[in-house]
Amino acid sequence: MEETLLTANNIWMMVCTGLVFFMHLGFSFLEIGLTRQKNTINILFKNVFIICIGLLIYCFVGFNLMYPGSFIGGVLPDYFIDLFGLSLPEDGLTTAYADGGYTYWTDFLFQGMFAATAATIVSGAVAERVKLTSFMLFSVIYVGIVYPIAGSWKWGGGFLDEWGFYDFAGSTLVHSVGGWAAIVAVYLLGSRIGKFGKDGKVNAIPGHNIPMATAGVLILWLGWFGFNGGSVLSADPGATSLTLVTTCLAAAAGGISSFISSTIMYKNYDLTMFLNGILGGLVGITAGADQMTPTDAIIIGLIAGVIIVFGVALVDKLKLDDPVGAIAVHLICGIWGTLAVGIFGAMAGMDQFLIQLAGVAIIGAFCIVSAFIILFTIKKTMGLRVSKEEELEGLDLHEHGGMEAYPDFRMNQH
Amino acid sequence: MEETLLTANNIWMMVCTGLVFFMHLGFSFLEIGLTRQKNTINILFKNVFIICIGLLIYCFVGFNLMYPGSFIGGVLPDYFIDLFGLSLPEDGLTTAYADGGYTYWTDFLFQGMFAATAATIVSGAVAERVKLTSFMLFSVIYVGIVYPIAGSWKWGGGFLDEWGFYDFAGSTLVHSVGGWAAIVAVYLLGSRIGKFGKDGKVNAIPGHNIPMATAGVLILWLGWFGFNGGSVLSADPGATSLTLVTTCLAAAAGGISSFISSTIMYKNYDLTMFLNGILGGLVGITAGADQMTPTDAIIIGLIAGVIIVFGVALVDKLKLDDPVGAIAVHLICGIWGTLAVGIFGAMAGMDQFLIQLAGVAIIGAFCIVSAFIILFTIKKTMGLRVSKEEELEGLDLHEHGGMEAYPDFRMNQH
Amino acid sequence: MEETLLTANNIWMMVCTGLVFFMHLGFSFLEIGLTRQKNTINILFKNVFIICIGLLIYCFVGFNLMYPGSFIGGVLPDYFIDLFGLSLPEDGLTTAYADGGYTYWTDFLFQGMFAATAATIVSGAVAERVKLTSFMLFSVIYVGIVYPIAGSWKWGGGFLDEWGFYDFAGSTLVHSVGGWAAIVAVYLLGSRIGKFGKDGKVNAIPGHNIPMATAGVLILWLGWFGFNGGSVLSADPGATSLTLVTTCLAAAAGGISSFISSTIMYKNYDLTMFLNGILGGLVGITAGADQMTPTDAIIIGLIAGVIIVFGVALVDKLKLDDPVGAIAVHLICGIWGTLAVGIFGAMAGMDQFLIQLAGVAIIGAFCIVSAFIILFTIKKTMGLRVSKEEELEGLDLHEHGGMEAYPDFRMNQH
Repeated sequence: MEETLLTANNIWMMVCTGLVFFMHLGFSFLEIGLTRQKNTINILFKNVFIICIGLLIYCFVGFNLMYPGSFIGGVLPDYFIDLFGLSLPEDGLTTAYADGGYTYWTDFLFQGMFAATAATIVSGAVAERVKLTSFMLFSVIYVGIVYPIAGSWKWGGGFLDEWGFYDFAGSTLVHSVGGWAAIVAVYLLGSRIGKFGKDGKVNAIPGHNIPMATAGVLILWLGWFGFNGGSVLSADPGATSLTLVTTCLAAAAGGISSFISSTIMYKNYDLTMFLNGILGGLVGITAGADQMTPTDAIIIGLIAGVIIVFGVALVDKLKLDDPVGAIAVHLICGIWGTLAVGIFGAMAGMDQFLIQLAGVAIIGAFCIVSAFIILFTIKKTMGLRVSKEEELEGLDLHEHGGMEAYPDFRMNQH
Repeated sequence: MEETLLTANNIWMMVCTGLVFFMHLGFSFLEIGLTRQKNTINILFKNVFIICIGLLIYCFVGFNLMYPGSFIGGVLPDYFIDLFGLSLPEDGLTTAYADGGYTYWTDFLFQGMFAATAATIVSGAVAERVKLTSFMLFSVIYVGIVYPIAGSWKWGGGFLDEWGFYDFAGSTLVHSVGGWAAIVAVYLLGSRIGKFGKDGKVNAIPGHNIPMATAGVLILWLGWFGFNGGSVLSADPGATSLTLVTTCLAAAAGGISSFISSTIMYKNYDLTMFLNGILGGLVGITAGADQMTPTDAIIIGLIAGVIIVFGVALVDKLKLDDPVGAIAVHLICGIWGTLAVGIFGAMAGMDQFLIQLAGVAIIGAFCIVSAFIILFTIKKTMGLRVSKEEELEGLDLHEHGGMEAYPDFRMNQH
Repeated sequence: MEETLLTANNIWMMVCTGLVFFMHLGFSFLEIGLTRQKNTINILFKNVFIICIGLLIYCFVGFNLMYPGSFIGGVLPDYFIDLFGLSLPEDGLTTAYADGGYTYWTDFLFQGMFAATAATIVSGAVAERVKLTSFMLFSVIYVGIVYPIAGSWKWGGGFLDEWGFYDFAGSTLVHSVGGWAAIVAVYLLGSRIGKFGKDGKVNAIPGHNIPMATAGVLILWLGWFGFNGGSVLSADPGATSLTLVTTCLAAAAGGISSFISSTIMYKNYDLTMFLNGILGGLVGITAGADQMTPTDAIIIGLIAGVIIVFGVALVDKLKLDDPVGAIAVHLICGIWGTLAVGIFGAMAGMDQFLIQLAGVAIIGAFCIVSAFIILFTIKKTMGLRVSKEEELEGLDLHEHGGMEAYPDFRMNQH
């Protein structure tokens, strides 16, 4: 019986792993859709690179750093880190491993897919002006070291876990970790040429392929079935199905409230805001998806949708140029979702709220400092930003041998 | 053992739920692919709206209306409908619920994904000229009230179920329900400017992105693995796998026969017809996917493919302007599939055929009347159709603040 | 217990079947993305045709030809082949069938999805100049007869299986079978007009939609979860999860090594090479995905990535015009992966290596001869290639009644 249950659990976790992998297509579509065609190859290159290097780095370093007897906890890893990182424990394929929720191999792959996500979030925010090599270097370090250390404090059984900090699927540990780096990177990089006029006017730079951006969001929503559903770490019928319900209701509510607020504020039906509202709802529910009732989930989503509309405006006001809205979606809604665990659902309470706040602050401080050190060092050595000429003519022309994303199509210049 | 079987069943149903969700991307791609670029944002907005509001409305009202002791049956709902609709029954996460096929949460989410589909079908038929707010209002009412009432008559254990009417996964209850509203809406809206010449000539208005339309159909086919496979309501190995086989064979046969018939009729290889033939095969098998042999499925698909070719021509002849072929695909093949249950497979027989016919007629009458009342009222109050200027210049320009789907690309005007 | 395990196993196999089906969207996106817009409808038509006819043909002929008591083994099929090919064995839905790994219906559908893949591989290599009817005829014969015969020698328990030849998921039996036909077809067809200058110069013909090509590769990667994960033929937790890990690591390593080698050779960041490197890694691991450690998988992938860079250059040097790199990816990496089973992992050894080599050679000879006979006959009767005028103006214009893939967009002529 146990064996069969392991088989069933492991199937669910493998399906979820595939869905989280598929989120990378969602991110890719979203990011290229919301930026200009002249930088499309460059963005795709970054995203494909992150998936590949993210998995390899996580295999070499991250997985062992994040989980067993954390390095930050001051002890050596529990078992030998062999040359290529993965070393099957004796019980790794049995029901004794991970309470029979999945095998050691599934464990690695599911977590590895998560790891790459954090860097991908940054990728959207720095698009259209970051130097490819600099970004690649940053993402290797961030995925390989910063993400797993932060993760180990909670998911690896570290001090935040001991304090009772709760982050079910990573509103803080994935989305904010990516979001903090995004805000630091955007600050250090500066805005794209033309985004902010001399008079302080904000100029919209429209994305070149809105159907792709929309597809990206729907693919991300589907991916979240795996991101949250898999974070149950087994196929427990009650927990997984509740998680999918809260996830979908929060997404729907986030979209609707973002659509309504933005329609009231801007007097037109803004599809991009609608889409970011959905993502905000998804990020917002992620910290407590297994702790909420459907009603809680809808309220969390509704608030996340409003946050998105004001968050995007705020980021603009701060003269931070975030082409895809990554800061509002992943950072601000990530914080909101983490705090919401202390306000709604089964764990609500002032103590919990304060612990959630502490977790947000500690992870935030760690990520800001880490991202700043890495990115500032890169800026002072290799440089972070492409030349003005390259930015104006497009990164595809300069970094990718003139490869065009759509060579058969006639383009407008801008 | 029972617990483990519930876990396995529930995994399958959650996977199917994800696949049905993914169909919304398929519908979106299909609809924008087969229409003009100037209305792309508008169509995407509608589709994203339907997913979000569909889930929320179904949570508030639809699920309780459709399933437990139907309202139409004249009795009050079996259990208290709380403010937000969902109320976990005591046994909702145990093997006692739904014969151990899935949990209460999965039940809601799977059915909720279905509900939104019916409105999406309409969306394609009314594209490029319907007023956004009017369509949104219509879809809220249709998904929230009409769809669940019709559904309750069969799937909620209502009178059609008692009569022995059979509709496995919704040839009638989903596809025709959408299709009837589509034909009413198209009739009330009128055709797009330029579609029918004064001399009665039918002018093709080519879709602007055929690769996306093709992707939409392949995504829909994949989604049908969940639509039909999940309608087994458990992971029963024999029933689910037979269902996938009949579904895929009918789709393949529908495509091939549609391709051959249209090649004979029009002397060229028409990709759109091929694609609609696949969809016709899928809709056609849906009513009896678990009752057919592979041979039956192929024959049903072959006939559906021919129906598509003649159906599309018939709709044109009736001067009904259906940009994506929704009426031929969802209504006509939905009827065909429902009747086919009385002709082929395990339930074939004259009695069954007549019951199927009665079901088609009753649901049809109910949907036509409901859709007419809702849409006629909207037409006389808010209006159904955008202005001539808006239609000519594109709905994206007028309803979405001038947001363009592809601002970097140079376009032909038409 | 057994029943529940069958249910779980069958769920996994159905999910994998869906994923392999989804690969056809990946192939479609990849092929149209890497070719010119003027042939897009034509390529999509081919691919959609292959899925549909592939399933039907495999149902009529292929499945029975490939598996039960092979025809090539000189005996009649074990059981009656009825008119439509599928005939449920008495135990076909019980745990007695296929060691309880799946049902008879799942067996057929999973294998049927594989079958169509082989022809799709050819489709990419012959794109932009092959006659549609000729290609359709070829693919019917190849999928219906050649593929299942070759497959029966190993997977049907034929002589290669008896010799100990190993090909887990089809580096040889699927990818090389497709790849050999591709090279024969490309040779017989000749290169596209303009590909090779009179001075021997190779002119790059850029693909028209690189985002779609990228999406295609990510979809294919996801599909490989099912392609390799399903080839375990059950949901055995250890074997399936190891397979997913080796598959993903090989893909990632293939991408990274291809990116690095091509950057060194060509001094720019070539996204297409990166993408083909990922595919090369995937094809390379396919023969031994269940036999390798993660370390082995990374090495196999790294080598595959380098092979891709040199393979693409070699194919160009041989004046073979393969628009999508199918020969390097599927044929050369398919051979590499098959041989790698004799070099790395649990089966490594000189004897095994020689058996692998023999298998590669025998299947290669059979496929080359078969493909040559079929294609040469077609060439001499119906013709293989479109007219020069048709090629220059685009196949969409001539074979598809002037249907355009993107009629609203302004295009460059080339």
